[in-house]
Amino acid sequence: MKIAIVGAGPAGSLLSCYLAARGHRVDVYERRADPRRYDDAEGRSINLGLSARGVKALTDVGLMADIWPLTVPMRGRAVHGPDGKVAFHPYGNHQEEILHSISRRDLVVSLVAHAAGAGVAFHYDTQLSALPEADVVVGADGAFSTVRTLMGRGARADFRQEYLPWGYKELTIPHMPVHHEALHVWPGGDDGLIVTHPNLDGSATATLFLPYDTLAAITDPEAFFARRFPDALALIPDLAKEFAERPVGHLVSIRTAPWHHDGHVVLIGDAAHAVYPFYGQGMNSALEDCTVLDACLAEHPDHPAAAFAAFEGRRRPHTDVLDELSRQNFVELRERVRSPLHHARKRADLMLARLLPGRWVPLYTAVSHTTTPYADALARAKRQDAVLRWTAAGVAGLAVVAMFARKVR
Amino acid sequence: MKIAIVGAGPAGSLLSCYLAARGHRVDVYERRADPRRYDDAEGRSINLGLSARGVKALTDVGLMADIWPLTVPMRGRAVHGPDGKVAFHPYGNHQEEILHSISRRDLVVSLVAHAAGAGVAFHYDTQLSALPEADVVVGADGAFSTVRTLMGRGARADFRQEYLPWGYKELTIPHMPVHHEALHVWPGGDDGLIVTHPNLDGSATATLFLPYDTLAAITDPEAFFARRFPDALALIPDLAKEFAERPVGHLVSIRTAPWHHDGHVVLIGDAAHAVYPFYGQGMNSALEDCTVLDACLAEHPDHPAAAFAAFEGRRRPHTDVLDELSRQNFVELRERVRSPLHHARKRADLMLARLLPGRWVPLYTAVSHTTTPYADALARAKRQDAVLRWTAAGVAGLAVVAMFARKVR
Repeated sequence: MKIAIVGAGPAGSLLSCYLAARGHRVDVYERRADPRRYDDAEGRSINLGLSARGVKALTDVGLMADIWPLTVPMRGRAVHGPDGKVAFHPYGNHQEEILHSISRRDLVVSLVAHAAGAGVAFHYDTQLSALPEADVVVGADGAFSTVRTLMGRGARADFRQEYLPWGYKELTIPHMPVHHEALHVWPGGDDGLIVTHPNLDGSATATLFLPYDTLAAITDPEAFFARRFPDALALIPDLAKEFAERPVGHLVSIRTAPWHHDGHVVLIGDAAHAVYPFYGQGMNSALEDCTVLDACLAEHPDHPAAAFAAFEGRRRPHTDVLDELSRQNFVELRERVRSPLHHARKRADLMLARLLPGRWVPLYTAVSHTTTPYADALARAKRQDAVLRWTAAGVAGLAVVAMFARKVR
Repeated sequence: MKIAIVGAGPAGSLLSCYLAARGHRVDVYERRADPRRYDDAEGRSINLGLSARGVKALTDVGLMADIWPLTVPMRGRAVHGPDGKVAFHPYGNHQEEILHSISRRDLVVSLVAHAAGAGVAFHYDTQLSALPEADVVVGADGAFSTVRTLMGRGARADFRQEYLPWGYKELTIPHMPVHHEALHVWPGGDDGLIVTHPNLDGSATATLFLPYDTLAAITDPEAFFARRFPDALALIPDLAKEFAERPVGHLVSIRTAPWHHDGHVVLIGDAAHAVYPFYGQGMNSALEDCTVLDACLAEHPDHPAAAFAAFEGRRRPHTDVLDELSRQNFVELRERVRSPLHHARKRADLMLARLLPGRWVPLYTAVSHTTTPYADALARAKRQDAVLRWTAAGVAGLAVVAMFARKVR
């Protein structure tokens, strides 16, 4: 088949590897410049956290060996308290239950080099105003997908686009003095949030999330940091300059249905399901899409319409759940990581996972360290939560019975 | 001010009357033909149910006297059972708690004639590709608003569009033998729904709502009616012909925010908030928008941005509630109107309203027969429901206490 992929980000580039390996003729169209030749700044999120799903999708097509050297392990969260104290919370019970920080550009360049070697043709600086000619067109062109707009014009489509009332700025930490192999968090409640990802050179990229009103009201970023995030201030020497020069990033969530039209066009990644970044699963779910779409196309080699319908049916219930989880984790990151009760609950969860290996899987573990489909992971977590609640109620009930027993005697 | 209104439907035409009365210079642009010269078929919903909100909006600008003669009262619902029996349920306790059926075309022609007499310029057959030049542009161009697309391109906007998986066809009942002054309902559960509106000439317009799958599977409409709606079959002599010729209508719900941009553009009616038609409030809420927007512009005569912000702040919480109510009423119309328990509950509600005039207002009454803002109507109904539940619980509790009292003696 002649396949056109629109968008050469992580999802589009990886899918081209999968489809080229199946022997299809693949062209990839990208409106930006070739990242192999230019640095793709544009104020986009520079670091990403690769987790089990992304690793699996890259491994299945033989790419992970090239990518490991580009990653920095993140073994847990380093949570910065208002007193400047840093508490480290591991991501899981096992050595391999960790995340991997990678630069978006490094990942894409590696994928594109591999795809180009496999015969995929990349067309950069190409803004499309109509769908390209091909047997199948894949929209991997992100949250504001042109393919989505052009696909099935006038046909019934459900669509939801929501902006978080918070924007973000990226700032540079040239040297992270403690816990380099961690995702650092400064939870600021309703007033802000900083998250950092480590880089290979010992530096880290900090993302400052703030409500738009707060962002707009900041005239002196150093004074703001001194008040809100005093221990972060010392880590960001170019704060004033970077704050002035870097654009404000926006956070958008998108759901749409259907994902395909007429056996000719199909959407993957952010074009089909954009989520807020707080579960770190946006890219991972996009890479996982490639595995699922490739499998569906292989199951229906002569019937793209059936393949696309199977893809959406198999995938959308799970990405819908990911959307919910990503919203909830925004609350967790900015609020609950500060709460001792929350950590006690998390520790109990991890302890039960150690006691009941394979039978008790905390939600975060299932989402980040396994490839269990998102909705299945959530359903299991709900059952486990119910068990914990009944156990607690049972303990309380036994205590009451014991009290009565003493009185009766 | 020079004001351009895009869309000459009920909302755009009525708003032009309001704004012309304030002395503004108003131009109205409409992509369809002039309804004063052509019949506007296009398979659109032909009859509408005017209720208290619409009547108030038309009365405030002095139009209702011309419109009364074009309406047919609908005094309640005539519910057709599977056995062919018809049960009549009045809409309220009072003579004036009724709805008024009107043809969309008659209403629009009347509004346009009035507006044109007040100096408004109407430009028909005009498809815009850019916003018209004016101090203020009002998008009254419906659910698929071009103004909404053009307004603030690239600015952050929340948006949700959902299609009901049901379509509809309009069919003609030349003569309604019983209860002409009623809205007839054939509730078909998950399999279909017929609703009719009376016309001035004794005929009625029936709207057949069906799941898309069911609609597509019908090869012999008469056989389908004979099986599902046997007593309706006899009323629609041209069923086969109309079913074949009339287009399938779609039902879309739209929420969007913001409703305005830069003190220059504002949305009203379906362009700002399209709802499913099952509460009969789509047009009424659009007409009510005109009253509220006119009041906001009068409060901020030199500051459209403030007027638009006030309009959205005052109005959107209520149209969001209307969206929810319209979804719930779809269930009510196709399911619950058949349930004796539901009617007992409705009768209790109406009885309490008679006993406590002005202090107990059933939800349907508040939505359809008053101008209480939608969210306030819903909040009151929830309080009343809680009272009813507590009363029921209290009665049950007293019964238990009485039982114990007997035993103790």
